[in-house]
Amino acid sequence: MALGKMWTFEDAPVDYFEETYGFRPSQKWLDHVRLSSLRFGDGCSASFVSATGLVMTNHHCVRDHIARISPDDADWVKNGFLAKTTAEEAKIPGLTVQQLVGMKDITSEISSGITDGMTDAEIKSTRDRNRQTVLGAARNRQPNLDHKVVKLFQGARFSLYSYNIYDDIRLVCSPHLQTAHFGGDPDNFTYPRYGIDFSFCRAYIDGKPADTSEHHFTWSKSGADDGELVFVTGSPGSTGRLLTYAQLLYQRDVFYPATLDLIHDRLDTYRAMAAMSPQMEKRMRTQILGLENADKAYTGYLTGLLDPTLMAAKAAFEKSLREKIASDPKAQARFGATWAKLEKIAKRQRAFLPRSRYHNNFGLPVLSKAVQIVKAIQEPTDKNIRAANRKMRAMTPTAEISHKGVWRLAIKWLAKEDPYRVALLRGQAPEAALVSLKSESQVSDQAFVAALMQGGTEALAACKDPAIRAAVALAKLAPENAAESSALTAAEEVQATLIGQALFAAYGTAASPDATGTLRISDGVVKGYPCNGSIAPPWTTFYGLFGRATEFGNKYPFDLPEVWWKKRKSIDLSKKVDFVSTNDIIGGNSGSPMINKDQEVVGLIFDGNIEMLPNRFLYRDTLPRSVSVHSEAIIESLKKVYGARALVQELLKR
Amino acid sequence: MALGKMWTFEDAPVDYFEETYGFRPSQKWLDHVRLSSLRFGDGCSASFVSATGLVMTNHHCVRDHIARISPDDADWVKNGFLAKTTAEEAKIPGLTVQQLVGMKDITSEISSGITDGMTDAEIKSTRDRNRQTVLGAARNRQPNLDHKVVKLFQGARFSLYSYNIYDDIRLVCSPHLQTAHFGGDPDNFTYPRYGIDFSFCRAYIDGKPADTSEHHFTWSKSGADDGELVFVTGSPGSTGRLLTYAQLLYQRDVFYPATLDLIHDRLDTYRAMAAMSPQMEKRMRTQILGLENADKAYTGYLTGLLDPTLMAAKAAFEKSLREKIASDPKAQARFGATWAKLEKIAKRQRAFLPRSRYHNNFGLPVLSKAVQIVKAIQEPTDKNIRAANRKMRAMTPTAEISHKGVWRLAIKWLAKEDPYRVALLRGQAPEAALVSLKSESQVSDQAFVAALMQGGTEALAACKDPAIRAAVALAKLAPENAAESSALTAAEEVQATLIGQALFAAYGTAASPDATGTLRISDGVVKGYPCNGSIAPPWTTFYGLFGRATEFGNKYPFDLPEVWWKKRKSIDLSKKVDFVSTNDIIGGNSGSPMINKDQEVVGLIFDGNIEMLPNRFLYRDTLPRSVSVHSEAIIESLKKVYGARALVQELLKR
Repeated sequence: MALGKMWTFEDAPVDYFEETYGFRPSQKWLDHVRLSSLRFGDGCSASFVSATGLVMTNHHCVRDHIARISPDDADWVKNGFLAKTTAEEAKIPGLTVQQLVGMKDITSEISSGITDGMTDAEIKSTRDRNRQTVLGAARNRQPNLDHKVVKLFQGARFSLYSYNIYDDIRLVCSPHLQTAHFGGDPDNFTYPRYGIDFSFCRAYIDGKPADTSEHHFTWSKSGADDGELVFVTGSPGSTGRLLTYAQLLYQRDVFYPATLDLIHDRLDTYRAMAAMSPQMEKRMRTQILGLENADKAYTGYLTGLLDPTLMAAKAAFEKSLREKIASDPKAQARFGATWAKLEKIAKRQRAFLPRSRYHNNFGLPVLSKAVQIVKAIQEPTDKNIRAANRKMRAMTPTAEISHKGVWRLAIKWLAKEDPYRVALLRGQAPEAALVSLKSESQVSDQAFVAALMQGGTEALAACKDPAIRAAVALAKLAPENAAESSALTAAEEVQATLIGQALFAAYGTAASPDATGTLRISDGVVKGYPCNGSIAPPWTTFYGLFGRATEFGNKYPFDLPEVWWKKRKSIDLSKKVDFVSTNDIIGGNSGSPMINKDQEVVGLIFDGNIEMLPNRFLYRDTLPRSVSVHSEAIIESLKKVYGARALVQELLKR
Repeated sequence: MALGKMWTFEDAPVDYFEETYGFRPSQKWLDHVRLSSLRFGDGCSASFVSATGLVMTNHHCVRDHIARISPDDADWVKNGFLAKTTAEEAKIPGLTVQQLVGMKDITSEISSGITDGMTDAEIKSTRDRNRQTVLGAARNRQPNLDHKVVKLFQGARFSLYSYNIYDDIRLVCSPHLQTAHFGGDPDNFTYPRYGIDFSFCRAYIDGKPADTSEHHFTWSKSGADDGELVFVTGSPGSTGRLLTYAQLLYQRDVFYPATLDLIHDRLDTYRAMAAMSPQMEKRMRTQILGLENADKAYTGYLTGLLDPTLMAAKAAFEKSLREKIASDPKAQARFGATWAKLEKIAKRQRAFLPRSRYHNNFGLPVLSKAVQIVKAIQEPTDKNIRAANRKMRAMTPTAEISHKGVWRLAIKWLAKEDPYRVALLRGQAPEAALVSLKSESQVSDQAFVAALMQGGTEALAACKDPAIRAAVALAKLAPENAAESSALTAAEEVQATLIGQALFAAYGTAASPDATGTLRISDGVVKGYPCNGSIAPPWTTFYGLFGRATEFGNKYPFDLPEVWWKKRKSIDLSKKVDFVSTNDIIGGNSGSPMINKDQEVVGLIFDGNIEMLPNRFLYRDTLPRSVSVHSEAIIESLKKVYGARALVQELLKR
């Protein structure tokens, strides 16, 4: 199971389910579950939970939509929203939910016309062309559905997925931000946890609640028990479990460290900007929250790659796959060289990543101006000349803050002999070089620029202005970089597909494909785990929620909305809030229903613990856990705090 | 502060306190605090908390005493105990509390007569003699006090400590075991935590409550606030902060791994024994709990030694001390060679530890019998001969379980060429060798034994019995081992004292000495910390206590006594239960009062978090925290659950 448990519905492993849990879902069971599950908006999951189009998802999946539609005088994100009648349900323009109604294997159609002698680029463009042909045919055949080509096992298999789209989605109920987001960034990706991160919308057709009587999940009376089998259905976004060891080393040594460097620099910058004024703070808040989330996630991924036991397991898995391939001469002839090729590609990526990140003007006005001037001289079109002559905007305080960190990182990450780095530094220390570049360059002097442009390429070649020289170096590097970028993309894609095919040849559908943002079903059990030197319980309770708020003085991000304190006495503190299970999820699963084998909702996925982040590369269930809102918490909140009696009735209806 | 903050009262760093906290304790303040603090029994701490001899300590410090005095028909440990009147207070025979009333520097007295040419053994015996002289004089001078020589800084300094002994101690109040020990082994050494681990005794003099009106701590109204300065007074048992890098490597590579191996083997054995019958389970329970505690503690210590940042800090500290010493030729001449000598000693210890642990009969009857026979032949005294002839007791089922693990470990840890190991294995695999040893040896055959003893040393030399041959090998090794053991002890002691003197020469009393089981005062602040991917709050609450019990289904060790559930509605759930602070503590500090600068009790030390264990070698306050019962929790429990109104009044009296 090293490749995880994100099963497609077309290859749901019913034998494995039966062996492991003594439960064999029927095709009817699988179809019902699939058709009750939804993709929500662009990157979340959801489900139908009533006969009249009620959709359950996370608050954080619909948060930005609520912000968009909330009247100015109310703050539905902060204060919550409840439609007392269907008439009050608030339309969310542009939001859709997508129901997977058709799946078809199109591997041979996509591979059609690919021959042995083709270059990487030719293979890639053939596939792209075939994809368009298949999609065109599907659209002609079923114009009312949305069709997508899904690449599974890195291209070893392709499926045509067809979706029924519900495009009239209205907000029914959302709790306070601090109910859903309790614990904020500190508690994000952790457990024990107390977020009650739910929200309800409704799908409409022709202005009426959609009839979903045939396919929706009913509500479990008691929720999931400790040790009980539970399924998650949803759309995990992306995993990297098929990456080869060499690719993982590249990610460990270059991709994640370089990306975290950038994230930290952006966080520093944005926080400094936010400190300038309350208005600026409000403007930067969402971006800061997003970066904090990325920081925690990427740090967790990198932690996995730095974990010797994880890497040893990856190495062992790769070894056994390669031995399996090597034992079959035909397979060996086809796939044997792939790992070495990907190692070479990873080596090129190590060199290329800093160039792709830092061969640019860093948002530094003096460089950005110089780049325009050089472009206008080298390609003297009207547009380029106009752009070069446009008055340089003054350096704003935010821009002043903004580019310094990037400059420092560019000097750090670019190779010592990199021509752009050499041109930027001119033999000086990084800080001094930045200061002198800004003070010595004349690119803001109109007369200088006019004379230079007048002199054309000859004047450009003779020009000693440091910004101009850096821009010339950059211009020279641009075509090389573009060529290397597309060559690497095509080469990696072709070899990755071979890895997928090798794996598929060895294990077939016993392996689950990497996440692709499409519908999957994942099995697991409710289960605590060793945590913080002790044990984490299978679930948390309202006792713990009020405890954590109290222990932090009810201060952000551990503050509960006032109504919660008012209604505290009526809340049954022993009711469950969140729970953990061994299901295999990742970003994109947010909003996924957690169901029992009777197809009843027992919970709502909204996160994983911090130990789960390395599961991006290797599924393990020793410590990693998915974190769900317990079904009890939703009912208790709706009943006791939000007074949403009609909604509770609708949820509990059989 | 790398050497920590376990300050002696004779060298309390008042300048440092003032610089750091703006609070300079007066001599009167220090004296009052010292005289209100107590050593409790053999290895705990305590304090006077009323004018009439009331003593506060941890439940786990008095637990075994309670078990001893509890009537058969009541179970005071499990069910708690409350004396309604002083008449009901239950005497604990043999228990004393000790008040430190005198401290005197006796470094020169202890070193008297030590000259440059002396051997390690001579130095050691001179010191031992001086110690007896000093103690004798003190006893003559103040016969009613208990006097102890305390070795500070590994012998760089010696103090004479004089104690007033209270030897009539009676139990006043102790909560249920599950109130004090809530969370059991899993929560041991962790935080967030909910143990309410307190107990009250009373010191009596001449059958009346002791008059402690002059020196006792009063009770704080609100307890400690987040960020507030707090002091711990108590008797930390032992730390290893002056150990050299070479000594730490020995502990990391040999001492802790070998000791943990033994602990794990004993745990396996005792658990197997406990599984045999309920009676056996009850008999083994305390030993298993003790081993579980040792397992967690030793694993934590080893984790510290395996932490590269901790070891780098130790290396850096040692480097700077050695440079400081090297910069002064006189100091260099005296101390310069010490580190290299300790490195050589550590090398000898690496080789010696397995011999000291496994050159014995493992409790294996066949070997133990053979050892007696060999002894009777080599030293034919009446006693030895009687012992050898005594009938061998049959192998009990517990003995059968017991020795196998030790046998395995002996084979693992003894060097391949070790003569005893060679004699045990006789070229066979470990399991086979054990089986054949038992089946082939004739040491239980009376005729064989009689003939062998008749034949004397000559017959012994010719005897091929495998157990006898092993015992002969063992007998040959015994004097070597004894010599090496005392040589190592003396050599290490002498060099360790030099390290202490070098440190003292470099830093004087700015450094705090290693823990020695004597009274110390440690400063710190109440403070949460980064924990489990999120933040640990400065304190926990009764919400959390009931939450954790509920989340584990109120099952052991997360079960609360029934009365707690009955009284739940009357408990203010927002009251604080436990809290964390940066004070420097270790085993022995259990029962220490936590006071504010007004000399009021704000809490009661009972544990440290798991991150604190490596502080044994290096004090750090990034993550390590001491864990105390909050003063609010004690009052709330006494008032609302235990109905101990008189006791509450006595505590709150001013």
